[in-house]
Amino acid sequence: MNAKQRVAERAATFVSEGMVVGLGTGSTADYFIQALAELHREGMPFTTVSSSVVSQIKAHDLGLPSISLDQVTTVDLYVDGADEVSPDITLLKGQGADLVREKLLAKASRHFLVLVDESKLVRSIGQNFAIPIEVMPFAWRMVKTQLEVLGGQGDLRRIAGKDNLMISSHGSLILDMVFPDELDVATLNERLNAIPGVVEHGIFKNLANAVFLGVAGGVEERWADNGDEAS
Amino acid sequence: MNAKQRVAERAATFVSEGMVVGLGTGSTADYFIQALAELHREGMPFTTVSSSVVSQIKAHDLGLPSISLDQVTTVDLYVDGADEVSPDITLLKGQGADLVREKLLAKASRHFLVLVDESKLVRSIGQNFAIPIEVMPFAWRMVKTQLEVLGGQGDLRRIAGKDNLMISSHGSLILDMVFPDELDVATLNERLNAIPGVVEHGIFKNLANAVFLGVAGGVEERWADNGDEAS
Repeated sequence: MNAKQRVAERAATFVSEGMVVGLGTGSTADYFIQALAELHREGMPFTTVSSSVVSQIKAHDLGLPSISLDQVTTVDLYVDGADEVSPDITLLKGQGADLVREKLLAKASRHFLVLVDESKLVRSIGQNFAIPIEVMPFAWRMVKTQLEVLGGQGDLRRIAGKDNLMISSHGSLILDMVFPDELDVATLNERLNAIPGVVEHGIFKNLANAVFLGVAGGVEERWADNGDEAS
Repeated sequence: MNAKQRVAERAATFVSEGMVVGLGTGSTADYFIQALAELHREGMPFTTVSSSVVSQIKAHDLGLPSISLDQVTTVDLYVDGADEVSPDITLLKGQGADLVREKLLAKASRHFLVLVDESKLVRSIGQNFAIPIEVMPFAWRMVKTQLEVLGGQGDLRRIAGKDNLMISSHGSLILDMVFPDELDVATLNERLNAIPGVVEHGIFKNLANAVFLGVAGGVEERWADNGDEAS
């Protein structure tokens, strides 16, 4: 069992009867979906809701019961990876999948567990990646100007190797922006939330309840102050 | 000259050569567009950018130079109406037109002048209208649940007299929500900004520089503390 599989198996111990479980997207989240399939085979009743079309297809192929996101009011448990995790369990997400659905699940979930390995730990969000900011296509220039006023630098995300812009599943464009170190993440989070035309951004603050870290030979758990260690 | 026309004419005195001018939507904003057409006929060079397809058509029909919103980085002057105005010049907008474009123009403008009559003055935002909240269709149930946690009550906006839901120009649904008086507008504004799946909402806080109020026989100007009385 590799590290990704170990943290996924640990997260699966938090699933109990009748839960609505949010499925993340990515290689670690895939192991969690596999662990859920095992629970399902053992006869545990629960249902799933997906953060992306990719995870929806995987759940379907494994025969997991699922409901559509627009039928859900709250979620019991959401399990997903992250691109960066800082010591206060703020996350950066959005290098790959659907920012809006992921943040909506994170916000609507009673428990949001994040599965990572040590390579994702950073001192501060934005250390290794630019901040992805989904913008409505008609608004991108004005939004970029306002981000530049905050000291941000960057540009629209392109499809690697192609002369095309990346389009999100909501038809938005994505600005990948680097901000000065002096701008603290809490302030940046509030500023980004307040800019009209910004659909969503990659800073997940005060949303994760725990990070499960795959370390040599085990799983290290870091619970947020707001996260009760329910199981 | 009626009150709406008077405030519109007064706002037009703030237009100067070379400006990018944002056009609002509604009966008072229409008088401002008329006033701009007069300035254009007199030979003043400026260009316009519209907050809605409706005002874009009006500008076109009057022969006003215009550019597309996605070509703009900043706007010099934006003039529009509002549904409610509180004493600190917080606005409620969004009963009719495009919330996102309006708030984007308000945010990106050096000066945002609001034209109203006394019927729009309220003690506090939300006194006469529910707060319009644009939500992504897949997210509306989860967003509504989170708004209910804040004490909000309301439902999806419907097309009057039809069994159809109102769809915004961005393909969003609109929740019209009433919140308890105890929830102050600054807090509500921040909470709404932070909910994923919320595209935009009708509270315009710290955006207007001045309110021009049509009163008997004249125009009363109320400038915000942040609004320099440039002309």
